[in-house]
Amino acid sequence: MRGLLEQINQPNDIKKIKEKDYARLAKEIREFLVRSISKTGGHLASNLGAVELTMALHLAMDFPEDKLIFDVGHQAYTHKILTGRRKEFATLRAYEGLSGFPKRKESDCDAFDTGHSSTSISAAAGFAIARDLAGEKYRVAAVIGDGALSGGMAYEALNHIGGSRSRMLIVLNDNRMSISENIGGMAAYLGKVRTNVKYVEFKDDLEQTLRKTKLGTKLVYGLKRSKDSIKHFIVPGMLFEDMGITYVGPIDGHNIELMVRAFKTAFSANKPVLVHVVTEKGRGYEFAKKDPSSFHGVEPFDVKTGKGLKGDRGKSYTAVFSEAVCALAKENKRIAAITAAMPQGTGLDEFAKRYPERFFDVGIAEEHAVTFAAGLAAGGFQPIVAVYSTFLQRAYDQIVHDVCVGELPVVFAVDRAGIVGNDGETHQGILDISYLSHIPGMTVMAPGDATELKEMLAFAVRLKKPVALRYPRGAAIEISDTARKPLIYGKAEVLFSENEIALLAVGSMVEPALKARDILRGGAYRVTVVNMRFVTPMDEELLDDVAEGHRLIVTLEENIHAGGFGEKVAAYYAGHGKKVQLKNIALPNHYIEHGDAEVLREKYGLTAEKIAEEVRAFYRGE
Amino acid sequence: MRGLLEQINQPNDIKKIKEKDYARLAKEIREFLVRSISKTGGHLASNLGAVELTMALHLAMDFPEDKLIFDVGHQAYTHKILTGRRKEFATLRAYEGLSGFPKRKESDCDAFDTGHSSTSISAAAGFAIARDLAGEKYRVAAVIGDGALSGGMAYEALNHIGGSRSRMLIVLNDNRMSISENIGGMAAYLGKVRTNVKYVEFKDDLEQTLRKTKLGTKLVYGLKRSKDSIKHFIVPGMLFEDMGITYVGPIDGHNIELMVRAFKTAFSANKPVLVHVVTEKGRGYEFAKKDPSSFHGVEPFDVKTGKGLKGDRGKSYTAVFSEAVCALAKENKRIAAITAAMPQGTGLDEFAKRYPERFFDVGIAEEHAVTFAAGLAAGGFQPIVAVYSTFLQRAYDQIVHDVCVGELPVVFAVDRAGIVGNDGETHQGILDISYLSHIPGMTVMAPGDATELKEMLAFAVRLKKPVALRYPRGAAIEISDTARKPLIYGKAEVLFSENEIALLAVGSMVEPALKARDILRGGAYRVTVVNMRFVTPMDEELLDDVAEGHRLIVTLEENIHAGGFGEKVAAYYAGHGKKVQLKNIALPNHYIEHGDAEVLREKYGLTAEKIAEEVRAFYRGE
Repeated sequence: MRGLLEQINQPNDIKKIKEKDYARLAKEIREFLVRSISKTGGHLASNLGAVELTMALHLAMDFPEDKLIFDVGHQAYTHKILTGRRKEFATLRAYEGLSGFPKRKESDCDAFDTGHSSTSISAAAGFAIARDLAGEKYRVAAVIGDGALSGGMAYEALNHIGGSRSRMLIVLNDNRMSISENIGGMAAYLGKVRTNVKYVEFKDDLEQTLRKTKLGTKLVYGLKRSKDSIKHFIVPGMLFEDMGITYVGPIDGHNIELMVRAFKTAFSANKPVLVHVVTEKGRGYEFAKKDPSSFHGVEPFDVKTGKGLKGDRGKSYTAVFSEAVCALAKENKRIAAITAAMPQGTGLDEFAKRYPERFFDVGIAEEHAVTFAAGLAAGGFQPIVAVYSTFLQRAYDQIVHDVCVGELPVVFAVDRAGIVGNDGETHQGILDISYLSHIPGMTVMAPGDATELKEMLAFAVRLKKPVALRYPRGAAIEISDTARKPLIYGKAEVLFSENEIALLAVGSMVEPALKARDILRGGAYRVTVVNMRFVTPMDEELLDDVAEGHRLIVTLEENIHAGGFGEKVAAYYAGHGKKVQLKNIALPNHYIEHGDAEVLREKYGLTAEKIAEEVRAFYRGE
Repeated sequence: MRGLLEQINQPNDIKKIKEKDYARLAKEIREFLVRSISKTGGHLASNLGAVELTMALHLAMDFPEDKLIFDVGHQAYTHKILTGRRKEFATLRAYEGLSGFPKRKESDCDAFDTGHSSTSISAAAGFAIARDLAGEKYRVAAVIGDGALSGGMAYEALNHIGGSRSRMLIVLNDNRMSISENIGGMAAYLGKVRTNVKYVEFKDDLEQTLRKTKLGTKLVYGLKRSKDSIKHFIVPGMLFEDMGITYVGPIDGHNIELMVRAFKTAFSANKPVLVHVVTEKGRGYEFAKKDPSSFHGVEPFDVKTGKGLKGDRGKSYTAVFSEAVCALAKENKRIAAITAAMPQGTGLDEFAKRYPERFFDVGIAEEHAVTFAAGLAAGGFQPIVAVYSTFLQRAYDQIVHDVCVGELPVVFAVDRAGIVGNDGETHQGILDISYLSHIPGMTVMAPGDATELKEMLAFAVRLKKPVALRYPRGAAIEISDTARKPLIYGKAEVLFSENEIALLAVGSMVEPALKARDILRGGAYRVTVVNMRFVTPMDEELLDDVAEGHRLIVTLEENIHAGGFGEKVAAYYAGHGKKVQLKNIALPNHYIEHGDAEVLREKYGLTAEKIAEEVRAFYRGE
């Protein structure tokens, strides 16, 4: 029998599938996802959970006319399959291949680019209101997980559209997890709704809920009477209704027929309707279902065993940080660690096990995470906020306003700084030097290797100032062949001192700088290599020194050029009347696409070979 | 009779006042506030509303041991009076005088610096948890307005602490307004609570609520039965209770005795308790009560008439923007305007009147405002987000991730860019060039005068790209004595072309540059003056031109040096091997204190005289 999936080749093809075959199609999609992602890597558990949900949306919507926005976006694989992109999955997340996130440039069925959390309701509200103003009729839907609902801007959006007359569907995809377990008041509330309320299971119930009661005056059912107070009634969705959002649910998120009905009815209402569906992360693939956190984002794996196919790549910087922060916390009882829903990704899971009372997972809520840390610091503690470079962007104002105005000693462990690779534009950590190093009072450091990361973390804690410590994704290296010098505030480390070319490298660029030196020495160049250590404060004495003895000074950073280290060096020399020959090697001033990190570093000239070639080109007068 | 206020000279003095005299003390404080602010200017209506509330907190707390955090902070005047700072009110908001906001450096009774909205619960949570970890016992309270509660990070904080065992008081100061009217689901919800529920008025009720029922299983009273559904019961605070926050209220926010009792009882609970108090903005001063928006922040005024004492200062840039955006919207039906709770401050109030269907006040919610705008843009509209420079910091990630990744045509009208003066550190718009101009795909423009602001706004709308247009607080000027040249993308305007010194000025610095030229010509210097118009993209051709014919190039900007225009110019010249003599005039890399804007510009060298002096100093070889 020919597979149903092969009949799905362009948008809306799913509507040709018979209702009785939906379950079979869902199964085929799951098999396809597991098979395909086992080869390319990618996001697995969340996509397995959202198969029926996405099918139901496609049955209730028309593409590309209608606008569907996936919050975060890594769960949009089924949407990609259903809009004619199945055959491109062999290139998923590879350079020039299919993106792992919705991309307007990739398909007109992708209404809005996502990648970060909690933006979908805001974007959907924009579409819905634009549609109404223009007198158009298309449908608008946002799909948001219960994890993403802990992000404040989702609440801001609900607050804005609460009570409005704009027709839009919000699907709350409740899988009881963000990447890790959810925590906090909203999660507890949804837990109570799930536990105490029967699913809306029967056609008549649903009809009654949505129609007879005209959406919003609906009957309440499934209540369990509690001991002594009306407050212990669980009224499903009351919290949303209180904010003016019509609520329907909870619904079984693997029952396509019921969801289609709910979605269609929601689209017929002239107001925002939230449909709460309960799904299971990792559904249909036993390993992912049992351990959805580990199967959130995966490298290629063996379908039969669930084991990764790529061998041990050595200890990551994340693992080095994980050990270092635990070691420091053992000695210093005032150290507290904070994550915004990423205990595993940041390596804080070990800290959480050892020092649970000093560990805080605040949910997907970077803004609160930073100001909460500022409060801990003002209360005499030493908070360490471990966060990815791009996600810390969410808390720029909190860093400026709550940490740095008050000069509070919060340490930011900025992981995934620099190119991260396959996740693409929204996840490359290429802006943090630009957005952190201009903030008054902020110290920005970057270690050249694993040992230095440990030393810098200890140093940052001793400093009692706002500090950001940026380090890259991937395997930690050791620069073993030099005698390392002790860390001194604002001082760079000269690894090799010669007198023709000076390579001034920030963090991850120290190693390629050393290799570039080896290459260039083959051409008889005399090359100084400096591990800058501090982006701010800048080591001005070092800059003065290298200005004297070198014909060419090259700055090296894994950040965009604008607002980066290279610009600061240029401005320093200009401001002090030093006439030097300076070359800034940095990422170009645009977003960096997805692809293998090594491919991207090669493309953008950050490898040792490319650096050496740039130097040679300078000597050739190019 | 000697005034009660004179007995309040240091923290906790209020506890010596007899209960029967509370009302008289409140009256004296109000009279003092009106009298004092009528002379210095400052925030009036919000402070008049919070007198009894602050007194009650001081009666229930001990300072400086206990930690009290005012959200936004401009309503902390009574707190300053009650902590021994009454006599400093003559210097309120003046250079080197009393700050208009809580400042840790000013008093150990100010636990946390605030200025922006919605941060207080996060900071309080940090204090409360730090206290518990350290085994200390002090009290922690946050005071947050209903307006600030629309900010997402307040919700993130509630979500985090919901269900926790950390003892802290959250006072919801519900005055039905932020600076303007509140809107949105939460405001409607609080409105229903206020309307449908009796105040908790009697001692027994309150005791019963808080004690007998052990906080959280409390009886529900004052319910009005609605037509047909349990959902129409208004259970006070159910929304907060659903999130795990114990709720008490609503309470009359001018009844000191009741509030003291509620606060003390809340402090005795081992969990976060939200006490909802209803206050009246502007209370006790008729003009402020009737028009609290106009009496939010005031210049010196005549107490008897409520009229401002300073004469007409000419049309502000805000007013110019207000007219310009209305004129554009008249022609272009796709223009929509968005504010985060500041229709008057941004000048969008007129747009709101004329084009209500295309006007959106999303509440204090800059993050949502920006992504909502991105959604409108993706839906075919031309949104203009009008926002103050420092408040846009809150949406840095949304600009990066939702606007610029998707290259969506959102125009940011960035008001209060540069020194704003009396509000101080948290309100000076001195970072926007640094945080906006490095973002890939962002165009940053700054007009030199009123006419150019209008032209640039029209130009930005035609551009169909992400654009930020920064303009300062205060009176708009006209540069009348030059024939203005048409706007061309990425091109500067040369106002005077000579051949010795080149002044490259951004926006507000064009006028002082012209005046500096006049001064310098008296010394026979030959001075080129360039109105840069675009910070990014930079006019490289212009930079090349001035590099040739000038002995000294001076960049001028009202932004900090780090990440600013001057650094970019320096980097350009360095990167292109141009050996020029460059001087960057910008604000220093630290926060700028409060004080009159002219005093600060003088201090930091941004006046014509100071610019001229810098040039002369260069010629003297200094």
